[in-house]
Amino acid sequence: MPQTIKNTRILSALNKQPVDCTPVWVMRQAGRYLPEYRKIRQQAGDFLTLCKTPELACEVTLQPLERFDLDAAIIFSDILTIPDAMNLGLYFAEGEGPKFKHPVRTKADIDALPIPCPGKELNYVMQAIQHTKQGLANKVPLIGFAGSPWTIACYMVEGGASKTFGIIKKMLYQSPEMLHTLLDKLATSISHYLQAQIEAGADIIMLFDTWGGILTPEAYQLFSLHYMKKIIASLPAHIPTIMFTKNGGLWLEQMVSAGSNALGLDWTINIGDARQRIGDKVSLQGNLDPAILLSSPDVIVEKVSQLLADYGPGTGHIFNLGHGITPDVPPEHVAILVDAVHDLSQQYHTQSDCSDDKNQ
Amino acid sequence: MPQTIKNTRILSALNKQPVDCTPVWVMRQAGRYLPEYRKIRQQAGDFLTLCKTPELACEVTLQPLERFDLDAAIIFSDILTIPDAMNLGLYFAEGEGPKFKHPVRTKADIDALPIPCPGKELNYVMQAIQHTKQGLANKVPLIGFAGSPWTIACYMVEGGASKTFGIIKKMLYQSPEMLHTLLDKLATSISHYLQAQIEAGADIIMLFDTWGGILTPEAYQLFSLHYMKKIIASLPAHIPTIMFTKNGGLWLEQMVSAGSNALGLDWTINIGDARQRIGDKVSLQGNLDPAILLSSPDVIVEKVSQLLADYGPGTGHIFNLGHGITPDVPPEHVAILVDAVHDLSQQYHTQSDCSDDKNQ
Repeated sequence: MPQTIKNTRILSALNKQPVDCTPVWVMRQAGRYLPEYRKIRQQAGDFLTLCKTPELACEVTLQPLERFDLDAAIIFSDILTIPDAMNLGLYFAEGEGPKFKHPVRTKADIDALPIPCPGKELNYVMQAIQHTKQGLANKVPLIGFAGSPWTIACYMVEGGASKTFGIIKKMLYQSPEMLHTLLDKLATSISHYLQAQIEAGADIIMLFDTWGGILTPEAYQLFSLHYMKKIIASLPAHIPTIMFTKNGGLWLEQMVSAGSNALGLDWTINIGDARQRIGDKVSLQGNLDPAILLSSPDVIVEKVSQLLADYGPGTGHIFNLGHGITPDVPPEHVAILVDAVHDLSQQYHTQSDCSDDKNQ
Repeated sequence: MPQTIKNTRILSALNKQPVDCTPVWVMRQAGRYLPEYRKIRQQAGDFLTLCKTPELACEVTLQPLERFDLDAAIIFSDILTIPDAMNLGLYFAEGEGPKFKHPVRTKADIDALPIPCPGKELNYVMQAIQHTKQGLANKVPLIGFAGSPWTIACYMVEGGASKTFGIIKKMLYQSPEMLHTLLDKLATSISHYLQAQIEAGADIIMLFDTWGGILTPEAYQLFSLHYMKKIIASLPAHIPTIMFTKNGGLWLEQMVSAGSNALGLDWTINIGDARQRIGDKVSLQGNLDPAILLSSPDVIVEKVSQLLADYGPGTGHIFNLGHGITPDVPPEHVAILVDAVHDLSQQYHTQSDCSDDKNQ
């Protein structure tokens, strides 16, 4: 239960309640930039095995918390666990990203898709969450997550990542009803999956809409946002939610209608402008350019300082990168980032026990 | 001279003067979706040889004008002709896009870069323009173009296309002055190059800022927009200009300050919203999702109709795709698009000689 969690900064910020300093976590904080992650990954053999081995998934989830004063953990997993559980033959080609042996292209393909049972085919995720909750001992909240229906559908229909997404877009324009059938099935599957994550212990839920930004404004509403809204509405009201559409900065006003507590922002929008546009309707998560972590400590501190000033005084901000951290980032730069956020943000908040909290 | 061109629709729309119907051309209209292009490309052997052989570049430039009732030609060339003329060893790896044998990474690399002489190293482009102007016989205007300094620098520094652009972004954050030196050199080179294109006969100039949209709003201003503004200011005032930053829909207000006659839009923004935001300050070019051309004729006509209605009555719109046409588009779908634009847009304009013009 969230009430028992010691570090409640993110939960407070998500509920627009006062905080002592701005909370911070990092997308892909458990990842390849950490040598201890690479070691476990090598031990597991491959990425999917790592995801599917609860003890190891738990271990890598906790790794960044050992190093950095992060305000949340996020369960180590992948947005493609659902289509994997639908038996589409997910594999990761070296250097090429995810691929499916059996892409979904026809009405028959879509009708044949099973709705995975979270307690069976996806039980490894629930076990990883349970292990991680034990390991965290209520130090910080645990974020559970899923890909958006549109984003997962992109991979399922294209059979992998794509430059132009011509196959799914042809389906969208030519056979919209067929695509809606797929998206509806995915929304149901994702709802079940996230409810199970919450039952297993997830304190916060995030939806990753990596490919919503390749759509027209109208298609985004109909084929991505609509289904995220459906999922968010299906979740228990006391669990805060974060919705992130990469390259969605033009559509913040529409996104607010989906009912999430926070919107994730990539770095192409000034967070102060975003706050001005959507007022006090939702909290905002983001949005440092991940490439800033490749530069020197003084530049990192300067850019953190600027971003905090751009957001301005008051709660409602969860500091993060605008996208996942890249493997070439020196881990010590993440420590600089996290400490800078905590130190430099105190001036924007009324409470004042942030520095003590660091040594908990 | 533009005055002698028969079809002045695009020139009128760029100058916000009345037109009989909305003008239309298609990014990459001379390209791989056309069998007659693929034939010449095969004859040339490779893409760069095709660019560098004025007779062939002229021939492929004119090919789409033979098939479709397009309101402009665009010279067949590439945005990387300039770094190629700087001797960086441009080559095209099959299926991987452009690469440079000698990426630009250090101050010494940047200082060593020559400013190409358009009349010498880039004379093949000027010859292609001269041939094409003759071939066009003033039927429609000819668009000349260049990549933006930032976009060209992305390829030069990374050594090719990139997913995260970590190398140039590290330079941007860590050594901004070094990057400014490179961008300044590129802006000078591009200004000379475009002036030569105008002297050779280009009637309109377009700047392609393919990668401006990967920047933060602040970095976009400083490292991309600033240099495009400089280039536009250097060109003769009577030559209309179009500036296109892919994924730049959040920054239209800033873009207006660069002084171009028109802004190109990708499909992630509603063109009516864009028109409302920047009022009557500039014309707008775009912005149909290229994937719509993969669907059926009735869907294409419906989406064209909707886009024209979104823009609404009056001049200032140059119809185009929101990005280049893809090789899998059936050529007959381009005919449907072009004719639908001309036919369905007449209701939004006051003049009425559009249908006759089709048979010129």
